[in-house]
Amino acid sequence: MTSRPSRPRDRGIPEATVARLPLYLRALQGLSERGIPTVSSGELAAATGVNSAKLRKDLSHLGSYGTRGVGYDVEYLIYQISRELGLTQDWSVAIIGVGNLGRALANYGGFGTRGFRIAALLDAAPEVVGRRVAGLTVRHIDSLEDVVSNEDVSIGVIATPAKAAQGVCDRLIAVGVTSILNFAPVVLNVPDHVDVRKVDLSIELQILAFHEQRKSAGRQGSDWVDVLDA
Amino acid sequence: MTSRPSRPRDRGIPEATVARLPLYLRALQGLSERGIPTVSSGELAAATGVNSAKLRKDLSHLGSYGTRGVGYDVEYLIYQISRELGLTQDWSVAIIGVGNLGRALANYGGFGTRGFRIAALLDAAPEVVGRRVAGLTVRHIDSLEDVVSNEDVSIGVIATPAKAAQGVCDRLIAVGVTSILNFAPVVLNVPDHVDVRKVDLSIELQILAFHEQRKSAGRQGSDWVDVLDA
Repeated sequence: MTSRPSRPRDRGIPEATVARLPLYLRALQGLSERGIPTVSSGELAAATGVNSAKLRKDLSHLGSYGTRGVGYDVEYLIYQISRELGLTQDWSVAIIGVGNLGRALANYGGFGTRGFRIAALLDAAPEVVGRRVAGLTVRHIDSLEDVVSNEDVSIGVIATPAKAAQGVCDRLIAVGVTSILNFAPVVLNVPDHVDVRKVDLSIELQILAFHEQRKSAGRQGSDWVDVLDA
Repeated sequence: MTSRPSRPRDRGIPEATVARLPLYLRALQGLSERGIPTVSSGELAAATGVNSAKLRKDLSHLGSYGTRGVGYDVEYLIYQISRELGLTQDWSVAIIGVGNLGRALANYGGFGTRGFRIAALLDAAPEVVGRRVAGLTVRHIDSLEDVVSNEDVSIGVIATPAKAAQGVCDRLIAVGVTSILNFAPVVLNVPDHVDVRKVDLSIELQILAFHEQRKSAGRQGSDWVDVLDA
């Protein structure tokens, strides 16, 4: 391991806090749209499903402590979180794989308003390349390197079949993309300097199945099984 | 708060372990398809991107410790994890909202092979109701209660616009659904006995933006800002 002095430290913001900042941001934007100027930690906690003490701790990492009896200034907190998340600039996103999921992502309304611009859609299938989707013409995967460079793409979204994902990932990294959102049901191998976020739809369902099974067992009065097992 | 004696305890399996079991399962199914009979904790850890000590701890919650010098029996571990997750039975899933995202989910190949059956698709839009999607005819949202009851739906997947999500959620709960996978960009209010998993695409992107911003700052040599700030 060599040291990497050029990699900035994250100023001690825990990953779990980073993951909650977008929740706070969304709730705050809702308040802002309704013209509400301040919010208490309890109200913001309730709106985001986060424990109120944890919320105050999270916001203290941004240097935001609110005012006793008044709460947080909604607009200023939006600014602080947006700045922390890097949303005060626009990030260009390329979606690779324009099947049902890629089309859903391209049409997903939330991106544009939240600091992201879908800059390009790419696919390998001749029947998809050249089609218009969400206002963009689907490009051939062979032009990936040109597109990333010309459109200054920062984030690659992989929505290909599983078997194509690692190859696409390698090409994105080779051309300098270091942030990847992966929807393909595979674990991608990437070097240390690349961040991958993974969304796996069947995994979310499997976690629900675990809880559903436990609840069904409860409804059937099989608590005793646990007791007897113990 | 009243006590709920009918709710089974989770036999001490931590939520974070539950969230990793589907990763192990997918990797093991890959090994099984290639005819590989045993796997070491190190190999399974590498294939899933989980630290090997953590993996051994996770599997010990299932009573699975492997054999020194041999590793874990792939087929038996698949059985143990599937049983723990409740995948040895089939769960019926209803998708509400059949826009781009709902269609992507309906066509998502991974569900059928992993213990889930898409039992119904529902939408409110007249131009969508009656259409065939992924082998099913889209039903009108007004038939939600009938569909849940007739198809024995255990899991509701909400892929509606944000403003419709809470209403759909309330109706699912009223008819007895207690597991919900929510793709709409809102926090759903649910009673304690209901489990909600939330997938928010812009939130994943925002977390990537946070890291991308830090990396960009690093490339520009602005580490010093942190030092000066400190």
